[in-house]
Amino acid sequence: MTVGIIGLGLIGGSMAIDLKRRGFASKVLGVEADPVNAAAAQKMGLANELVSFEDCVSGSDIVIVAVPVGTAVTMLPKILDAFEGAPDKIVIDTCSTKSNIVRCVHYHPCRGQYVATHPMAGTEYSGPWAAMPGLFDGRACIFANSEESSPKALARIEELYNILNMRPIYMNADSHDVHTAYVSHISHVTSFALALTVLDKEKDEKHIFDLASGGFSSTVRLAKSNPDMWVPILTQNRENVLQVIDTYIDKMKAFRQAIDSFDEKGIEDLILQANRIKKILR
Amino acid sequence: MTVGIIGLGLIGGSMAIDLKRRGFASKVLGVEADPVNAAAAQKMGLANELVSFEDCVSGSDIVIVAVPVGTAVTMLPKILDAFEGAPDKIVIDTCSTKSNIVRCVHYHPCRGQYVATHPMAGTEYSGPWAAMPGLFDGRACIFANSEESSPKALARIEELYNILNMRPIYMNADSHDVHTAYVSHISHVTSFALALTVLDKEKDEKHIFDLASGGFSSTVRLAKSNPDMWVPILTQNRENVLQVIDTYIDKMKAFRQAIDSFDEKGIEDLILQANRIKKILR
Repeated sequence: MTVGIIGLGLIGGSMAIDLKRRGFASKVLGVEADPVNAAAAQKMGLANELVSFEDCVSGSDIVIVAVPVGTAVTMLPKILDAFEGAPDKIVIDTCSTKSNIVRCVHYHPCRGQYVATHPMAGTEYSGPWAAMPGLFDGRACIFANSEESSPKALARIEELYNILNMRPIYMNADSHDVHTAYVSHISHVTSFALALTVLDKEKDEKHIFDLASGGFSSTVRLAKSNPDMWVPILTQNRENVLQVIDTYIDKMKAFRQAIDSFDEKGIEDLILQANRIKKILR
Repeated sequence: MTVGIIGLGLIGGSMAIDLKRRGFASKVLGVEADPVNAAAAQKMGLANELVSFEDCVSGSDIVIVAVPVGTAVTMLPKILDAFEGAPDKIVIDTCSTKSNIVRCVHYHPCRGQYVATHPMAGTEYSGPWAAMPGLFDGRACIFANSEESSPKALARIEELYNILNMRPIYMNADSHDVHTAYVSHISHVTSFALALTVLDKEKDEKHIFDLASGGFSSTVRLAKSNPDMWVPILTQNRENVLQVIDTYIDKMKAFRQAIDSFDEKGIEDLILQANRIKKILR
């Protein structure tokens, strides 16, 4: 089977590697708009061939859209348009927000050939050089509004993610966006804000390096994430993200208040409550 | 040489392991106030002997105070009192805040026999069961107000940390507390607040587990840290911590504002600024 991958970055590139190695794809057609990334992807052999958007869509059995969500939203309807008369073709996206993208093709006559997914895997790096084998192994993959996909298309894509060793979770797109705002998107915003705070204060960058114990490095790790991916996520999921930022600021203020008033019991209670995350994460 | 370690938790216990294994201590006398921790430390063989506070101070050449800073501040003057007439004995502390503790013995006649240190190593776990070999290897150790220690005591403790493979950094205690507020303490507060935010929203704990991609887990890791250690740090370093929390809240509000007004350029600028942390951390 020929798999087309639009966007050979961390996600698209890593899928290319494992779908080929594990025999799901006999051939990968890649599309990469950025010339530097395209040259690197070519040199690294991520795809069998780099082709145009049109050739990728016409030449692939399954098309994977692995570009920032702002671009994916405009790309997806065009791909479904091109599917008319080719009822066996399937397209999926891998974007981190789902409400807008499923809404934009809800009434498309070929809607059944689209499966909305969000493989919850990644690192803070991006680009073809960040692609790696095994990135998805053991992680969760969200299928959003899967009842809008045809059973045949859905089964095929479940097989694809099964090959990638992902655990499927089925969820409504709006509910996905609420949950990811709380569990994933806010983590990025807090990391960005932490980096900005420290950079603001520590003009002497050597101190940051010297004093950055493991704690700081892991908390600030996500602040390395790139704006091409995160600006669209934060704007597409604007309402949920704003709500979680407000809750978060309230929690920070509760800490501030307890510390300001030397309320040791109050600080202890807040920390003990936060400690409950231990039980859940393992 | 006999080394006394008061507090056989993550830091004290890990020191016990490596100071014995690497031949610096021929004998370790341990003090552990908590009966469960004491029994565990005994069973794990962290110390050669568990003794009383008094016996530890009288029987050791070097005493290491590895207890939460609130306790250390009351313990240190008593240890220096007991040093009168024993000019070769040395005491160090390993606390994460330094201004208060150096201030409380500034005029003590045996001040020269005290070396204030902060080994910047740790994990989010605590207790004797968290102790591990190699915890300090390659990390930085702050020596605070080292000019107040006698050259002989300082040299001996530099040797101790050299055996632990730590890089020494010399710093004024007040300046230490400002820098650690920005680089270490705020990371913990942001993690606690993140855990509280997510726990508040996600009543369905299964969702947290399912959706917790690597990003969330690393950002929230420090929220597992225990209140016995962190309540005293946050109160002892109150002024610096409050200031950094205020800066942090301002940064969060800048994000909020940019997202709220669909200001993609503004969000991008904030992320690009935050990305500068990459260069510093590696």
